Amino acid sequence: MTQNIFDNENFFNGYRELRNHDTCMNDLLEQPAMKKMLPDLKEKTVLDIGCGYGHNCLDFIERGAKKVIGIDISEKMLDVAKKESANPDIEYRQMNMNQISSLDTKFDFVYSSLAIHYAEDFKKLMRDIFGVLNNNGILLYSQEHPIMTATIDENISHFNFDENGNRVSFTFSDYNRSGMRKIHWFGEEIIKYHRPMGEILTGIAGSGFIITEVVEPLPEPWAVEKSPDIVREYIKSNFLIIKAAKR
Amino acid sequence: MTQNIFDNENFFNGYRELRNHDTCMNDLLEQPAMKKMLPDLKEKTVLDIGCGYGHNCLDFIERGAKKVIGIDISEKMLDVAKKESANPDIEYRQMNMNQISSLDTKFDFVYSSLAIHYAEDFKKLMRDIFGVLNNNGILLYSQEHPIMTATIDENISHFNFDENGNRVSFTFSDYNRSGMRKIHWFGEEIIKYHRPMGEILTGIAGSGFIITEVVEPLPEPWAVEKSPDIVREYIKSNFLIIKAAKR
Repeated sequence: MTQNIFDNENFFNGYRELRNHDTCMNDLLEQPAMKKMLPDLKEKTVLDIGCGYGHNCLDFIERGAKKVIGIDISEKMLDVAKKESANPDIEYRQMNMNQISSLDTKFDFVYSSLAIHYAEDFKKLMRDIFGVLNNNGILLYSQEHPIMTATIDENISHFNFDENGNRVSFTFSDYNRSGMRKIHWFGEEIIKYHRPMGEILTGIAGSGFIITEVVEPLPEPWAVEKSPDIVREYIKSNFLIIKAAKR
Repeated sequence: MTQNIFDNENFFNGYRELRNHDTCMNDLLEQPAMKKMLPDLKEKTVLDIGCGYGHNCLDFIERGAKKVIGIDISEKMLDVAKKESANPDIEYRQMNMNQISSLDTKFDFVYSSLAIHYAEDFKKLMRDIFGVLNNNGILLYSQEHPIMTATIDENISHFNFDENGNRVSFTFSDYNRSGMRKIHWFGEEIIKYHRPMGEILTGIAGSGFIITEVVEPLPEPWAVEKSPDIVREYIKSNFLIIKAAKR
């Protein structure tokens, strides 16, 4: 059975509060890097996998996209999207990302922000994305970095501090054990899938994609000013962003 | 000035002893994975960057290669190669890998085992390799994994053990600080260059290559039998192997 944690009331409220906080890592680090990597969207058709509140769908329309389909497994998320990010050229659909091959549209651009680490079958997902893309189409997606998803026992993964309380190193384990990870977030158990870098990249290349860019974003000076602690990103990497083309 | 540590007498002897030992990680983990990824070499011209003792050059000839050029910066290494791995179709040249664009031959296959982390300018090296490859040529190379090269202070990077003496996790730092690393090996200071995954992969893709495979090798059962401790590779990854094509 597919997890739908975002329709859990506690989780939904906890997550919404986090995302409303202006030192959220997504807004400081992942979203700025993703925005820089967006292709020209004028007159393009776009699929947003795990669109959440729909903010990016609306941004794509503002950048000139002709048509955007945002899918998410969570009705609660889509309820917010339909209120906060409504537009006649955006269609929100409740859909599991393992169902995208059933879409009757083809896309010039497939986007996904921090959803793909929830996909159990990565190879199938990459084949499906390749299948719904037009020729010369582009995939841009982010996920939690494998260094961050690696550790099976949540107690093992942590920063280490020096005598002055500064973070100096990061401890992790199980990097090369591909598979399910259970973590706790907002009091709920969340299921993710850890895949080492090689599995991710060979999976993308094996689906026929040309990998054009791999980014492990670092904070811009304005982000360090907002949240000085974000320099911990020099120790490890929180996010992995991959851009690939269908040629 | 380019480092030539392999021509240092102490280092050369220490390294030679390590490689003669049959539980050396190269022979248990890196070389078996690299051999599996070799393309068909019949009638091909091959460049081996950092050929060392020339064992792989000889193997390429045995696999049907027409002509092999092995380059290495160390005369001492090449002296061994000319004795242990001599063949009329192999040419050994003393050359820094930053000079390969001066070669007057084009190649169908460029190979490099555990040398490229010594290259200071990775982008230039990738452009140069792309330049000396024929169309449809293939690059296959291995390097130390960025998780292993990351830490600047050698005292920080280490395994952590449980009360029974089993390795349970790995501590590292400075993953996102690209640049020079000084380590100590056989009593000598060695200079390497750490680059995070994103820099490596975007560098390769940016040179025009199609990345086809990224491998973080795991030990085969026979290797675990020879060296049971090698299961530590499930905690982190020692090697990174990349295969890319010029199309």
